[in-house]
Amino acid sequence: MPGAGRFISFEGIDGSGKSTQARRLADTLRTEGHQVVLTREPGGSPGAEEIRRLVLEGDPDRWSAETELLLFTAARRDHLEKTIRPALAAGKVVICDRFADSTRVYQGITRGDLRGAVDRLHALMIGQDPDLTLILDMDPGLGLARAKGRNGTEERFEDFGEGMQARMRAGFLDLAREFPDRCQVVDAQRSTDDIAAEIAALVRGALA
Amino acid sequence: MPGAGRFISFEGIDGSGKSTQARRLADTLRTEGHQVVLTREPGGSPGAEEIRRLVLEGDPDRWSAETELLLFTAARRDHLEKTIRPALAAGKVVICDRFADSTRVYQGITRGDLRGAVDRLHALMIGQDPDLTLILDMDPGLGLARAKGRNGTEERFEDFGEGMQARMRAGFLDLAREFPDRCQVVDAQRSTDDIAAEIAALVRGALA
Repeated sequence: MPGAGRFISFEGIDGSGKSTQARRLADTLRTEGHQVVLTREPGGSPGAEEIRRLVLEGDPDRWSAETELLLFTAARRDHLEKTIRPALAAGKVVICDRFADSTRVYQGITRGDLRGAVDRLHALMIGQDPDLTLILDMDPGLGLARAKGRNGTEERFEDFGEGMQARMRAGFLDLAREFPDRCQVVDAQRSTDDIAAEIAALVRGALA
Repeated sequence: MPGAGRFISFEGIDGSGKSTQARRLADTLRTEGHQVVLTREPGGSPGAEEIRRLVLEGDPDRWSAETELLLFTAARRDHLEKTIRPALAAGKVVICDRFADSTRVYQGITRGDLRGAVDRLHALMIGQDPDLTLILDMDPGLGLARAKGRNGTEERFEDFGEGMQARMRAGFLDLAREFPDRCQVVDAQRSTDDIAAEIAALVRGALA
């Protein structure tokens, strides 16, 4: 069914298992005959990946919160134009590891009070949200320990203590209340299989 | 006088002599005892220069008009934060070769009808315009010939024929009517010395 694609995003704090569950869901849907595009932000298209490198490499303080927001929005616009919209137009299922909700929480809450600017910029230059957003919910201490346990990512998390993780968790749960029609909170403190099974059931309901 | 800096921009079509006159004005003002920061867009700060390279290098069609607008706005925000505002706060004269008016004309007129988005984005994320804008006005055919005569710039101008240059000239003259309090149109089809003398007189009036 061209034009009938669905757009699914995964959100949640660092270490909550977004990438793992996004891959699991992609595998499940492909097995069930869907055409799936698995993508991620920041990045997801060649141009957006270049912008991602510009933001994430080098001194983390070299961009202000506002400039970073503009760069992430530029990357999202490119990702939407080059990857997401063409896939949706071809009737595919797009699974995205983070999308605009991450910006609402990170730039809107943790980097100064930019939520108003985030919303106006989204309305002006993006104007699209997922059909279904799966928010993987987890205790901030557990998420932080898992994120720190990954190879090579420790350094990035040194400034993101448990207090910040707790604020981000609260921010994602607030978003679920703000956008109840598209957001589903999933308990991510269970086995990978149990979580994957619940997500598959939620998605089958949304795709039916 | 800290905080009493002035912000002067040069605008006009390619080949109209903006860079030459910006340098001349900087030299004149320095001779007269002013502290001057001579800068340019896109670019003007280390971060903004990196964004400039991302936009201007590679396939010119790889970014949509909207993504390019976001990238240029990110560069402008960085330029404003890191170069322009600190200089103005220190009482310096900032001379900028192109600023937001170039975006209003290029992205607002020549790359689809984006003027509404340009204005909203400027109000949301930039919110500052020069105290004085010198619009160097020139016949489009003459400007194009001068731009093409520069070393190594011919290729970029192949897609910018005389018709496009004529639309851009009209766009800059429209801006002068839209912002009469800060814009001055300068006849740029005279000798470099005559143009520099008129500009110096205009700027002395504005700085008095």
